[in-house]
Amino acid sequence: MSKGVTPQSQDYSKWYTDVVQKAELADYSPVKGCMVIRPYGYALWENIKANLDKMFKETGHVNAYFPMLIPESFLKKEADHVEGFAPELAVVTHGGGKKLEEPLVIRPTSETIIWSMYKKWINSYRDLPILINQWANVVRWEMRTRMFLRTTEFLWQEGHTAHATAEEAIEESHKMIGVYRDFAENFMAMPVIVGTKTENEKFAGAVDTFTIEAMMGDKRALQSGTSHYLGQNFAKAFDVMFQNEKNEQEYVFASSWGVSTRLVGALIMTHGDDKGLILPPKLAPYQLVLVPIYRDDEAKEKVMPYVKDITDSLDALGLRYHVDSRETLSPGFKFNDWEMKGVPLRIEVGPRDVDAGKLVCAKRLSGEKAIITKKEFKETVVKMLDDIQFEMLASKKAFRKENTLDINSYDELKAATENGGFARAFWAGSSDDEKRIQEETKTTVRCIPFEQSGKEGTCFYTGKKTTTQVIFAKSY
Amino acid sequence: MSKGVTPQSQDYSKWYTDVVQKAELADYSPVKGCMVIRPYGYALWENIKANLDKMFKETGHVNAYFPMLIPESFLKKEADHVEGFAPELAVVTHGGGKKLEEPLVIRPTSETIIWSMYKKWINSYRDLPILINQWANVVRWEMRTRMFLRTTEFLWQEGHTAHATAEEAIEESHKMIGVYRDFAENFMAMPVIVGTKTENEKFAGAVDTFTIEAMMGDKRALQSGTSHYLGQNFAKAFDVMFQNEKNEQEYVFASSWGVSTRLVGALIMTHGDDKGLILPPKLAPYQLVLVPIYRDDEAKEKVMPYVKDITDSLDALGLRYHVDSRETLSPGFKFNDWEMKGVPLRIEVGPRDVDAGKLVCAKRLSGEKAIITKKEFKETVVKMLDDIQFEMLASKKAFRKENTLDINSYDELKAATENGGFARAFWAGSSDDEKRIQEETKTTVRCIPFEQSGKEGTCFYTGKKTTTQVIFAKSY
Repeated sequence: MSKGVTPQSQDYSKWYTDVVQKAELADYSPVKGCMVIRPYGYALWENIKANLDKMFKETGHVNAYFPMLIPESFLKKEADHVEGFAPELAVVTHGGGKKLEEPLVIRPTSETIIWSMYKKWINSYRDLPILINQWANVVRWEMRTRMFLRTTEFLWQEGHTAHATAEEAIEESHKMIGVYRDFAENFMAMPVIVGTKTENEKFAGAVDTFTIEAMMGDKRALQSGTSHYLGQNFAKAFDVMFQNEKNEQEYVFASSWGVSTRLVGALIMTHGDDKGLILPPKLAPYQLVLVPIYRDDEAKEKVMPYVKDITDSLDALGLRYHVDSRETLSPGFKFNDWEMKGVPLRIEVGPRDVDAGKLVCAKRLSGEKAIITKKEFKETVVKMLDDIQFEMLASKKAFRKENTLDINSYDELKAATENGGFARAFWAGSSDDEKRIQEETKTTVRCIPFEQSGKEGTCFYTGKKTTTQVIFAKSY
Repeated sequence: MSKGVTPQSQDYSKWYTDVVQKAELADYSPVKGCMVIRPYGYALWENIKANLDKMFKETGHVNAYFPMLIPESFLKKEADHVEGFAPELAVVTHGGGKKLEEPLVIRPTSETIIWSMYKKWINSYRDLPILINQWANVVRWEMRTRMFLRTTEFLWQEGHTAHATAEEAIEESHKMIGVYRDFAENFMAMPVIVGTKTENEKFAGAVDTFTIEAMMGDKRALQSGTSHYLGQNFAKAFDVMFQNEKNEQEYVFASSWGVSTRLVGALIMTHGDDKGLILPPKLAPYQLVLVPIYRDDEAKEKVMPYVKDITDSLDALGLRYHVDSRETLSPGFKFNDWEMKGVPLRIEVGPRDVDAGKLVCAKRLSGEKAIITKKEFKETVVKMLDDIQFEMLASKKAFRKENTLDINSYDELKAATENGGFARAFWAGSSDDEKRIQEETKTTVRCIPFEQSGKEGTCFYTGKKTTTQVIFAKSY
């Protein structure tokens, strides 16, 4: 744990797995493709969860829980859906010592089981909307896995809503991608581009998929959350009709939306550096770590009450902190350890600081170390954390801007994205064109941003005139 | 939903499933043995979870997450464990379209996967204790299921701790059964008997199992939470050794403990009556429901600001409430609906109440309905809820006392437990004796209570002298 990580410049991918392990976020498990989320990583996920859950409830949603095991036949009811998910399924064939009459699949996502229940619950427009979210584990059999980013089992939330009109379901799917954007930017300090997926990239069973796309430290894109307008596809597959206000039978309209433990990977790759993790104050399990420094009992008796006085103030402010009083480790070791774990502020207190009424305050983000009075610290600690949160978002916005190029030719696209980087381009190509570009350059259309210039330009690939600009990038 | 439930006296089992469905706690799913936890039931589980999680953290535990899929061979490493769980396993044989080399089982409990990880993490006494809890879903293939009480998939928490000494692991397992007792009595208002399981009833793989046993409304026992001292069984099965302070290699000592969504069933059956659910204020999703009553817009304009004034006070007090402003339903329908859902206090406000500065306050527990001034309501609402919480526990303690008999003969045992009821008895029988009694009477030893009289008596079955008293009962 005390040893450093592989530098990003040397091997970004190795840097990532080093950080995951050395910051004790997760560990490899004996089950292929599955990871163990360790307490520090899980504490981060708990903070993500708590804040998102609050935002979901504030927008009128309630939580529920549906079975993890789904009859195999359900998946087949929506043609695109089964095509998309069939290759990734884990199948339970035996239960209680017997072969099952019909195999059950472990949910890769829950549209099918949930819509089979909505059929029972929805009769009239008075039963609508249904605004349900579920926190759950899902399984998608993955060939190439990477901790947090792509694992066979992962944790996520999945919202599944039912509406009387297309307009309302579309509004819902937009509202929720907006919640994700808000969360990404204001909690994760991770700027995102919000937009629509192309046909090639949309969810299996959706009419439209909306996405938030973030730029990682190696300038590649990470799809960080999606929201789908499902039209009447699942209502038709499960025969879910309702009586509308005109007494007519009509199929129900749907949305679904989700984010997962992938967000932990997003946090690591957005902010981390060669010393390890850097966590935004709003989500850090510990916003501060206090390291008392002493060589003997006399010094300890001097330092500890002073530290207690500081933590009393932190309690009063409702801040999350940890006092590292491990006896057998040196201060230097502890400093490295908490830098690896990305704690925003480190406070050091030794006997001389107590005499002077001061303390050392070190910022993980900037590396700055300042000696300030205890009084000043108490008065400014909340503002310091707010400032760090703000600076983290601002610097990542600047980083993304630097690494986003407007391109006008295929060669420019290749140059702009070869080693990471976003390319903004006018685009009027077909799905096949997109696939060809992907094969040739490993670059895909990440999204058609909601925010468009409104200007007309020429598609770099087809030469057609268009007003549509898209973002191309290599992605995770 | 407006229709009543089957009376308890007519068919308790039917009463139970009626309440589960009519209070919209859960619904049957298309997957055999699995239920859907509906939003109202899930909100109850969220409150259970939040309070328990806080208690776990206050006692030094942290959360983590381990894979749900476990290699089949792992289960076999602990002989008792596999014998206990093998008949209940769900087995994944195919993943990603291929047959797996080794089948994976869905966790029925996580000792095996967790101890395979502890082997990686534990080297020295300095790595101990490990105090990890996990909130997760588990699957146990059940033949006869009942919503919340016994379902194939259920939600639970499982604590898994590792210690350097037997004493410490035993202390931990006692501490946690104490946490469960505290939660059952002070949050669920459900008195429990804390004790040790006999050999016949203990967890597969444990040295000792401790339990909290509650008396349901039909006087049958419900095992509501268990904590196990596992000795070195799993450490030996997974070869987890540590270097102790004397530089010797030693196997690690363990505990595990869990409660599940079964607690929702416990709440229903402890407190419910023929009008439906009765929820303790500390766990109720809504502690109060407000029903504004008006016939026209004029009356509505009068009533709603008054209701708003009341809810402002409830916000200030941090209470959970719901205003039922559904336009198409009658007040009477709403009253029944919220009685079914067990909301502790119902507030009714009509135009005449506004004129008089009063409101109607109806208590779900006692059925009492009083007209009080708004001022008095605001001043006393917290106390009213506290009193209800207290009364619920007190009345259930009295109920259990009434239905617990000291018995001295086998005939007395049969009489005391035939239609529910606890029998307290001196017991010196063997495991075989216990099995015979179970076959003949369907009654089992629920536990050997920690609290013993200290007196000597005669075992009603063997005639041997003993100081051990146990509780016999029919159970769920």
